[in-house]
Amino acid sequence: MDGIEARIRHKESLAKIMTADEAALLFRDGMMVATSGNPLMGYPKATFQALSERIRREGGIRIDLLCAGPVGSEVEDVLADVGGIRTRIGAIGGEKLRAAINRGEVRFIEGKGGQLPLHVKRGWYGPVDMAVVEAIGLTREGNIIPSTAVYDSPEWIDAASGVIVEINLNRPMALEGMHDVYQKGGDPIPIVGNPVKRIGVPYFYVNPEKIKGVVLSDRGDKPSGEPKPDLMGALLGQHLLDFFKKEIAAGRLSEPLPPIELGVGDLAGQVMRKIGASDFTNFRFHLPAITDPVLEIVEAGKVDWVSGMALRLSPEAWGRFQANLDRYKQFMVLRPVTICNSPEIIQRLGVIGINGCLEMDLQGQVNSSHVLGAKILTGIAGSYDFSRNGLYSIFVGPSTAKGGKISAIVPMVSHVDHTEHDVDILVTEQGLADLRGLDPHERAETIIRQCAHPDYKGMLSAYLAEAKKEPGHIPFSLEESHSFHLRLKRTGSMKETAS
Amino acid sequence: MDGIEARIRHKESLAKIMTADEAALLFRDGMMVATSGNPLMGYPKATFQALSERIRREGGIRIDLLCAGPVGSEVEDVLADVGGIRTRIGAIGGEKLRAAINRGEVRFIEGKGGQLPLHVKRGWYGPVDMAVVEAIGLTREGNIIPSTAVYDSPEWIDAASGVIVEINLNRPMALEGMHDVYQKGGDPIPIVGNPVKRIGVPYFYVNPEKIKGVVLSDRGDKPSGEPKPDLMGALLGQHLLDFFKKEIAAGRLSEPLPPIELGVGDLAGQVMRKIGASDFTNFRFHLPAITDPVLEIVEAGKVDWVSGMALRLSPEAWGRFQANLDRYKQFMVLRPVTICNSPEIIQRLGVIGINGCLEMDLQGQVNSSHVLGAKILTGIAGSYDFSRNGLYSIFVGPSTAKGGKISAIVPMVSHVDHTEHDVDILVTEQGLADLRGLDPHERAETIIRQCAHPDYKGMLSAYLAEAKKEPGHIPFSLEESHSFHLRLKRTGSMKETAS
Repeated sequence: MDGIEARIRHKESLAKIMTADEAALLFRDGMMVATSGNPLMGYPKATFQALSERIRREGGIRIDLLCAGPVGSEVEDVLADVGGIRTRIGAIGGEKLRAAINRGEVRFIEGKGGQLPLHVKRGWYGPVDMAVVEAIGLTREGNIIPSTAVYDSPEWIDAASGVIVEINLNRPMALEGMHDVYQKGGDPIPIVGNPVKRIGVPYFYVNPEKIKGVVLSDRGDKPSGEPKPDLMGALLGQHLLDFFKKEIAAGRLSEPLPPIELGVGDLAGQVMRKIGASDFTNFRFHLPAITDPVLEIVEAGKVDWVSGMALRLSPEAWGRFQANLDRYKQFMVLRPVTICNSPEIIQRLGVIGINGCLEMDLQGQVNSSHVLGAKILTGIAGSYDFSRNGLYSIFVGPSTAKGGKISAIVPMVSHVDHTEHDVDILVTEQGLADLRGLDPHERAETIIRQCAHPDYKGMLSAYLAEAKKEPGHIPFSLEESHSFHLRLKRTGSMKETAS
Repeated sequence: MDGIEARIRHKESLAKIMTADEAALLFRDGMMVATSGNPLMGYPKATFQALSERIRREGGIRIDLLCAGPVGSEVEDVLADVGGIRTRIGAIGGEKLRAAINRGEVRFIEGKGGQLPLHVKRGWYGPVDMAVVEAIGLTREGNIIPSTAVYDSPEWIDAASGVIVEINLNRPMALEGMHDVYQKGGDPIPIVGNPVKRIGVPYFYVNPEKIKGVVLSDRGDKPSGEPKPDLMGALLGQHLLDFFKKEIAAGRLSEPLPPIELGVGDLAGQVMRKIGASDFTNFRFHLPAITDPVLEIVEAGKVDWVSGMALRLSPEAWGRFQANLDRYKQFMVLRPVTICNSPEIIQRLGVIGINGCLEMDLQGQVNSSHVLGAKILTGIAGSYDFSRNGLYSIFVGPSTAKGGKISAIVPMVSHVDHTEHDVDILVTEQGLADLRGLDPHERAETIIRQCAHPDYKGMLSAYLAEAKKEPGHIPFSLEESHSFHLRLKRTGSMKETAS
């Protein structure tokens, strides 16, 4: 292939170039396979597609799939579609995989945020048979030059007995140097001073003998479907901006704002656009992924630095990003999840953690993952690390769902991902509840007053009055704590029917 | 007073010596008062006793009391007894204070483990008016030489407008040098290599002008009531030892064992004695407090190093400790809670975190703090930090309480302090449940099989069978999740009555 030596600079590895179909033959039933990427970018497309086709033809292969975060449906769903996943470890992106898990057909084990790769390396999940990673090339020594994602790849490559490298020919070699690969060991992580100053190497270290195959791919990208700002995101963002201003006025914050973490997804993107459009400047972002709205704020000249684990751009935004790659390398860096999400770094940088959620309760607990305590949506992923270690732990979301039939504020969440200890601030379109320094009674009252939808304020206050009849530190009614959820199951709505 | 210049080497502070009654006059209604210590040692006794007497005589004073951990009843209960506490922030030690909180007479706000002092310094709780700390003396420059506790004192002294130093004349100046006071800032914490090598200074830095009073005290200690080992502790300890041996056999651990954290209290002490009596040697301990059992293992010559935040010794053990103080300084160190409990240090040292709990559920969630979801016992305190960041997060406790009427294993805990994400191993006298790498169905089955008391296995299995009828990732029944607790409330027992 023309000019491929410019990408694969390691001579011995040129001999390992194979088709995706050939690579698919390297998998066996019961293998633990690790990969990386996010639902939009950075994951290997061709190899898993070919594996899926092989399974469809031959059957008899179910793998355990390891990836700390949700990954593209071209991995998760194409495999789930043919029954090719026995166990998923990490978090879920694909809709078909999610449905299969909730039907009980696929085992799913949630990963502990950025700690999952460390647990795997300690042997908690058994040996890793194969790591499959997207790359743009190989160095002269045979090390792997990442594509648009770092995440958990360095640990997977370390832990695996074999590695398949999928070279994405659509990504330019100019990406080289965007990455900073440092593996957490027994010493302090040396990020001090300038947070985007490189502390590691621009490649994934690998023993070249472990490389079992090099697959070339020019598959195109999925369109992102990133939405334009809407009212909900603008309302949530405005409450956050007002809060930052109050904290500044109280002397608890100063400009420029501390680094901001904001989860990915539609709503988070809308919130990000609102924050970016404010009077604040000199933003610093410490994010899971660099998204379209982040790039827009960069393009508006309002960003000092960005540290992330991957790009997560629409094809349109990617084009603009690529045109400025060399300039962006000066103040942007992509690092492993074990570094970005490490408590040490989140605390040292003093990151404001902002994450979405499914439901919140009167104690200040948050459910990010399970509908009615049973059905998984995505998994806790990075909110685990940022809610615990952020300078502020903020959760945002609409106060209702399903056209008002569901209140996101409930007496007690049906599943606890974040305890009251890890939640400082709750925000809905109704307002912001600052829970710091409040006792449990005050917390409950504040959440009802500030965050609940007017349709549910009365019901929540009635619950609280009932709960207060029990003596104790926390106003809590065992009898009524799940009454909203039970009514929803029974009647299709959390609202009380007029009688 | 004879020889007092040897303790108070700072001349200007000699003029500030006053009686406890005089110091008590420095408090005003509504003050935020911070202190430190544990229920046995290291807390200021005379000043709070005198304050309590003043409140009993005069009334009209209620303070907000800040201390990250539970502190002696000579602080908490003597003040609660006279209605002198408006708000308690941190965790609770005193029984009278606990009762007042559960009657709704005192506000109580749980602290976020080792992060509380950092939140206070960020202004989340408003200004701190007075810090009251126990010390053995003042340096020539006027800095404070700690007594037997470090904990949160450095931050309280920093944050407070005034400081009262209570000199405990029963503690020898030979304690000087036992402490290592380093305040967490924006740089990596420089604990690398030998964990007991000092990184800070042997005193609490203070601007001497802030010292409002120096109180001399020779009040005696409370006897500890540390129990001798009993069967429950031995059983729990044996399960832990078996687990360590299995992990070694599997190549996931090696000798000497990683540093061990073990909470304080009767049961933890008994577990510690069992572990200490094993064949393992060269123990390393990274603990909240150095207790009698820890000292016994040291005396048996089986300890490499101990890092803690305080001593928590019975008067008998203290006598033995004191006789060997200079030798112990070589391999023991006392540090602030913001260092000992920092995620950065717990992760770097790879500490095995072992903590007690109140109840555990089939999802692997743990309640450490609230009975029936409402009444506080102590608070989450340091288990917050160790469960999240430990090499293993282990919770131990008896499988039943109240003579078998309460099962500690329930369908869903009535209050969540530690989510499933923060619990790796559960241990009761029945056995050990290793939850790593298990999906929610397997977790529930393993917990019932390994940890539940035989009297409750059938009921728990029946719940699980019911929960499995709901489709989803987690077997969970909204209807029945609190059925055990409701039965307890109704009948006085979680057991089903024969019908």
